[in-house]
Amino acid sequence: MSQSFDIAVIGATGTVGETLVQLLEERDFPVDSLYLLASSESAGSSLPFKGRNLRVRDVADFDFSQVTLAFFAAGEAVTRSFAERAQVAGCSLIDLSGALTLDKAPCLVPEANAGALQGLTRPYSLTSPSASAVALACVLAPLANQLGLRHVTVTACLAVSSLGRQGVKELARQTAELLNARPLVSRFFDRQIAFNLLAQSGDPDSEGHAALERRMAAEIKQLLGQPALSVAATCALAPVFFGDSFSVSLQVEGDVDLPAVLELLRTAPGVELVEEGDYPTAVGDAVGQDAIYVGRVRRGIDGPRELNLWIASDNVRKGAALNAVQSAELLIKHYL
Amino acid sequence: MSQSFDIAVIGATGTVGETLVQLLEERDFPVDSLYLLASSESAGSSLPFKGRNLRVRDVADFDFSQVTLAFFAAGEAVTRSFAERAQVAGCSLIDLSGALTLDKAPCLVPEANAGALQGLTRPYSLTSPSASAVALACVLAPLANQLGLRHVTVTACLAVSSLGRQGVKELARQTAELLNARPLVSRFFDRQIAFNLLAQSGDPDSEGHAALERRMAAEIKQLLGQPALSVAATCALAPVFFGDSFSVSLQVEGDVDLPAVLELLRTAPGVELVEEGDYPTAVGDAVGQDAIYVGRVRRGIDGPRELNLWIASDNVRKGAALNAVQSAELLIKHYL
Repeated sequence: MSQSFDIAVIGATGTVGETLVQLLEERDFPVDSLYLLASSESAGSSLPFKGRNLRVRDVADFDFSQVTLAFFAAGEAVTRSFAERAQVAGCSLIDLSGALTLDKAPCLVPEANAGALQGLTRPYSLTSPSASAVALACVLAPLANQLGLRHVTVTACLAVSSLGRQGVKELARQTAELLNARPLVSRFFDRQIAFNLLAQSGDPDSEGHAALERRMAAEIKQLLGQPALSVAATCALAPVFFGDSFSVSLQVEGDVDLPAVLELLRTAPGVELVEEGDYPTAVGDAVGQDAIYVGRVRRGIDGPRELNLWIASDNVRKGAALNAVQSAELLIKHYL
Repeated sequence: MSQSFDIAVIGATGTVGETLVQLLEERDFPVDSLYLLASSESAGSSLPFKGRNLRVRDVADFDFSQVTLAFFAAGEAVTRSFAERAQVAGCSLIDLSGALTLDKAPCLVPEANAGALQGLTRPYSLTSPSASAVALACVLAPLANQLGLRHVTVTACLAVSSLGRQGVKELARQTAELLNARPLVSRFFDRQIAFNLLAQSGDPDSEGHAALERRMAAEIKQLLGQPALSVAATCALAPVFFGDSFSVSLQVEGDVDLPAVLELLRTAPGVELVEEGDYPTAVGDAVGQDAIYVGRVRRGIDGPRELNLWIASDNVRKGAALNAVQSAELLIKHYL
């Protein structure tokens, strides 16, 4: 395994892109040349990588035939503009933006559906799914067979960093203004997020669902290999900088065997079970960590065919950048 | 209706008690003498009422035969110590602490189950249910017949004021420390609540459910008159000072008739429907208001037999103090 690869990171200046570059170094990913790219507005800055400062260049000028693999960590519009150019140049890609359809770029969460890579052809196009789907897939995949999942109800309380740096800045600014008793002006969000919850992230469609909610539901089904699974998803924004929290309620086929579920979670890859008597939180446990934290695992108040749990994950690291890098590690090990 | 009543408020110095006294004045409740009471530690202070300052006395020294009606707005322990004394003295009571069992002190939310007062005998013992149950009952009661409710899944993101003044102080203190880059010391909560979510409020029992979750589930069933309804409840704490948010998913018997549901909510007493294109938030809409706000009313992504919605309410005002005062108004109108 002394082979190394030429790699591009598109959207290198964003929160996820920056973390992705850090992880490539931290995990000693076999990089030969690393190209950092961004849209023209963000090009020109530089990022440290293995003791050097790499310049961020304009993606519009990039020749994708120079690289084997590209991470698309920018917004959906950038992926839509450049993904095809990468593929035509023979470059495999892992998209984190959700811009590609799941039939053309299947979801991959190595802990949940590593087998999905079989049968795909080169150049590979993969989706690193939404942070919500990554978290849920890591926890639900090892349970799915045992439980016989029928219906998943999830309320995601997302960190403002799920909307990038502007979300983080706005929460900090609003909070400081309120604590200093200055009048609140909302800029990035259309209303007060400090000390408040926003019931949706992004505009709802004609049926009332936000794109992120539909995306998460579709991704979970694909990741679990259960296209007929029924999912109810609500994605709200919480006044939290980093770290998503998920309240999950599962309806299953038979009575829940709680000891068996707990044992599966104790040994599940990428999952840290917080045992009874304690519970996980986004900030206290998940942020900065590679694992998805799960706790409050309990049967329904009113029925043994229900399992409730609480999940906390680092939305930028494990939910996005790390899952993309782990997917790339799997790809280079067996397929590239 | 020129009759007026001698009234006691136990727990008058707490956030709910203080709001309750304000509401008695604001709504021109027919008070003859008002006795403000608290446990010995809190006695001695005073509260304004109709232009006078009323002294808060020690509840242990109080003769309940002086009053027709007592509001128990203190903690459970105080209710347990003094409720029986009040009843023996012939005093009707409305308990806000949840200390009494629902068979002895039935839940009342006037918008949902005003008829529950029929058949009770004097002195009346009523429970003003948890803020979560008040919010859900106001929204679900008018829908229950139309929908044929089978299963309610609710994730409550509770404000820290649900734990009283100490919760509010601790969130303010932690937030200021973090914004000023000082090391965080948790006091009232056992961990960081600022910019974080806590997955539970109160210790879980041997089956993993917090007392508040069980209470809320039992109250909802009683308020809707559906003892066999199945409820999944998760009560988390959010870094929000005032105002609870609820993500609710309902499973119902037939296909949801969304226009009919919306019309029922538009005309439901005590409910404000936030129409499509907007959504309610705790701080922006509910706090300081008498109504329960509901929005994001939509059918399931995967099934027409599911209805999802988001509820925001003022946990101290409508969720506690106002519901108790409205219950008392109903009681004096017809029964006292």
